[in-house]
Amino acid sequence: MPIPSDPAGLTTYELDRAHVFHSWSAQKSLDPIVIAGAEGSHLWDADGNRYLDFSSQLVYTNIGHQHPRVVDAIKRQADVLCTIAPAHANDQRSLAAKLIADVAPEGMNKVFFTNGGAEAIENAVRMARLHTGRTKVMSAYRSYHGATATAIQVTGDPRRWPNEFAPAGTVHFFGPFLYRSVFQATTEQEECDRALAHLEQTILFEGPGTIAAIVLETVPGTSGIMPPPPGYLAGVRALCDRFGIVMICDEVMSGFGRTGAWFAIDHYGVTPDLITFAKGVNSGYVPMGGVVLRDEIAATFDDRAYPGGLTYSGHPLAAAAAVETIRAMHDEDVVANAARVGAEVIGPGLRELAERHPSIGDVRGLGVFWALDLVADRETKEPLAPYGGASPAVAGVLAAAREAGLLLFNQYHRIHVVPPCTITDDEAREGIAILDEALAVADAAVRTEEPVLVG
Amino acid sequence: MPIPSDPAGLTTYELDRAHVFHSWSAQKSLDPIVIAGAEGSHLWDADGNRYLDFSSQLVYTNIGHQHPRVVDAIKRQADVLCTIAPAHANDQRSLAAKLIADVAPEGMNKVFFTNGGAEAIENAVRMARLHTGRTKVMSAYRSYHGATATAIQVTGDPRRWPNEFAPAGTVHFFGPFLYRSVFQATTEQEECDRALAHLEQTILFEGPGTIAAIVLETVPGTSGIMPPPPGYLAGVRALCDRFGIVMICDEVMSGFGRTGAWFAIDHYGVTPDLITFAKGVNSGYVPMGGVVLRDEIAATFDDRAYPGGLTYSGHPLAAAAAVETIRAMHDEDVVANAARVGAEVIGPGLRELAERHPSIGDVRGLGVFWALDLVADRETKEPLAPYGGASPAVAGVLAAAREAGLLLFNQYHRIHVVPPCTITDDEAREGIAILDEALAVADAAVRTEEPVLVG
Repeated sequence: MPIPSDPAGLTTYELDRAHVFHSWSAQKSLDPIVIAGAEGSHLWDADGNRYLDFSSQLVYTNIGHQHPRVVDAIKRQADVLCTIAPAHANDQRSLAAKLIADVAPEGMNKVFFTNGGAEAIENAVRMARLHTGRTKVMSAYRSYHGATATAIQVTGDPRRWPNEFAPAGTVHFFGPFLYRSVFQATTEQEECDRALAHLEQTILFEGPGTIAAIVLETVPGTSGIMPPPPGYLAGVRALCDRFGIVMICDEVMSGFGRTGAWFAIDHYGVTPDLITFAKGVNSGYVPMGGVVLRDEIAATFDDRAYPGGLTYSGHPLAAAAAVETIRAMHDEDVVANAARVGAEVIGPGLRELAERHPSIGDVRGLGVFWALDLVADRETKEPLAPYGGASPAVAGVLAAAREAGLLLFNQYHRIHVVPPCTITDDEAREGIAILDEALAVADAAVRTEEPVLVG
Repeated sequence: MPIPSDPAGLTTYELDRAHVFHSWSAQKSLDPIVIAGAEGSHLWDADGNRYLDFSSQLVYTNIGHQHPRVVDAIKRQADVLCTIAPAHANDQRSLAAKLIADVAPEGMNKVFFTNGGAEAIENAVRMARLHTGRTKVMSAYRSYHGATATAIQVTGDPRRWPNEFAPAGTVHFFGPFLYRSVFQATTEQEECDRALAHLEQTILFEGPGTIAAIVLETVPGTSGIMPPPPGYLAGVRALCDRFGIVMICDEVMSGFGRTGAWFAIDHYGVTPDLITFAKGVNSGYVPMGGVVLRDEIAATFDDRAYPGGLTYSGHPLAAAAAVETIRAMHDEDVVANAARVGAEVIGPGLRELAERHPSIGDVRGLGVFWALDLVADRETKEPLAPYGGASPAVAGVLAAAREAGLLLFNQYHRIHVVPPCTITDDEAREGIAILDEALAVADAAVRTEEPVLVG
């Protein structure tokens, strides 16, 4: 077969439109930026336009773009050994597992590696089902845990057998979210108490003995960055203990510095049974995710085979990137920086915007993990875009910000301010100033009462 | 938080046992080799023992270990841009998509990228369901398509809605496999005709209008390397056309040279609707998989959003490795080498072993994709290890080979000879000679008729 012609005549953009099928999109509607390079909190396109990255891409470049220590670690490891199967042992894989266990809560010492967050959840739920011998899983509305559902079902070998659970085995409940409380609560304490009572009722009516796991994002991310009220996660832990349910904290987005702690769970003094991670573990420089197991769960599989795995589990290149990312984060106090910038610059800055922009219904977050809840009406809290959809007003804010050199993260009616954990005070202020301008588009869409003409 | 102590006191092996949770295994039973480096068809451990790699790890290092061009491409790309979100465009991602489309059958021009094979199947099945508006999926017994089943079910946002299909939506059928025919066939032609009749009957009784896709490995891999008889895949294509069913060929293991062709489907003159790939696309140097879409399927999502995606889709480092892998495979005639070594050395060599070893019930394969079906009895074809299990005899063969410096791939009663596509004739002969010795352990377990003492 002849060597394919080098497509020198086509640009990256043209090749993208011709051959790359993009996720979550209608293909014809796309107009992607061609990213040529990046450094720290910035990226630039092929025409030399620079962007400040308030998205951390998909909320994962916690250490910023092209951190020199991590780049060097990848290059060094590439020279030694790019890949090796999961069955073998490897120095970078061993070390990455050790460093991850070191920053996890006490008593969580083993790490199962995957390529990303979805596979981490897959394996955490499988572990919980096998550990408990139960099938049902409870998880929250307003959550995202990955997009996989099928591969093992179409498999035709014995590895299918321990995985044949119907999606009906999943039951959704409401977590605490005071701004849009489904519990008619007016204080965080009320929201916490009522959300726990609701969860307990749901468990009791589903049958405690049927429930293998409760899966929840420690701080729900894509669905709106809603830090739980004090006491909520301890309450979930108590319910799990009472009913023998495995507590799975999904820290794919909230882990590795995002909230100003190594894991978001550190803010709440609770130890879950399983933690899922990805993204920040090596800032996505090489795809990697995984599960940290509490010793009791790991022991279930000491003498009994764990029926799950994947080809690139514990990939040496990804592990080397994780080792150097974690070490650099320690050496450079990256986690503390995220906490400080959030508390001193981003939080106050966004709250100040809320005072002046009627389109901002709520500001919430911690660390470098913030959401603006945009509304058409502050009284009714009507979202500025429908659930599951888009609106010209929100799209206009994103476009105005992009035009001014700022990349934001958006879902429906929300804009998330989720820069790298390494962001400087000046960069944070610069981005917030651009956001300030861009929000004019949203303000224009806020419902105002027309003066009623009498007579 | 203090920097975690550098675990200088612990070896890689000790850290692995303390912190790495391994796939598909009881954790206490493990005794992994600590792999320190690799090159071409060889690896070595920390003590300097060398191994000839007849496993290609998990059948994925098609271009061999540490190919210098691919290693350099990864290092170059690491300096430029390690990662960027899927929404943007990137030169390596564009180019990888173009080069993959170039080696795919005519009329398959778009590529959706994932991190590995399981996610490729996830997305191919989702595309088929949305394209057809049907939910059921048919797949073969004796198949493996990945280990994911749950993440989107526990998700609590609108991305769950298009993915709520019960595992009951999966129906398994028997593919052709003459050596262990379930159709009482005695020739390949008979096996082909009867397997197609069985598939047609199953479709008719399941309801053709309910079936979104037929998923099958073009040449089933882990389940036994069974090249389908001539005409079978064309027959499946005809059934799919007749009933409006999407034909998904899983080429995660069989693609990118493994069978002595770019895709195994090239041997059969058939164009599927979707091809899933991973492994050989960049020899796993950086995790990557994906789906190649026929133009008709891609067009379904021109104006309608495709509801699937993942954080590291089209990862620049993985894409750069794919670009250079494919180019090197072209330049160095790697695919032709796999075809030639298979036809001239491995096939004849294994058939010669079968003449002398009573434990070998069947030899089958093509390219660098071969299986030895080990039996306790050639008449009854009783497998030398049970379905889904292990046996001392097979474990003994693997241990003897490893002791002599040869790594093999094993499932149940089968040993697979699946070296890199770059293997030399001498390396192939060397490995087969070691296998020859090791098979003595299997021969000793073959049932022999005891002489019956009379009187």
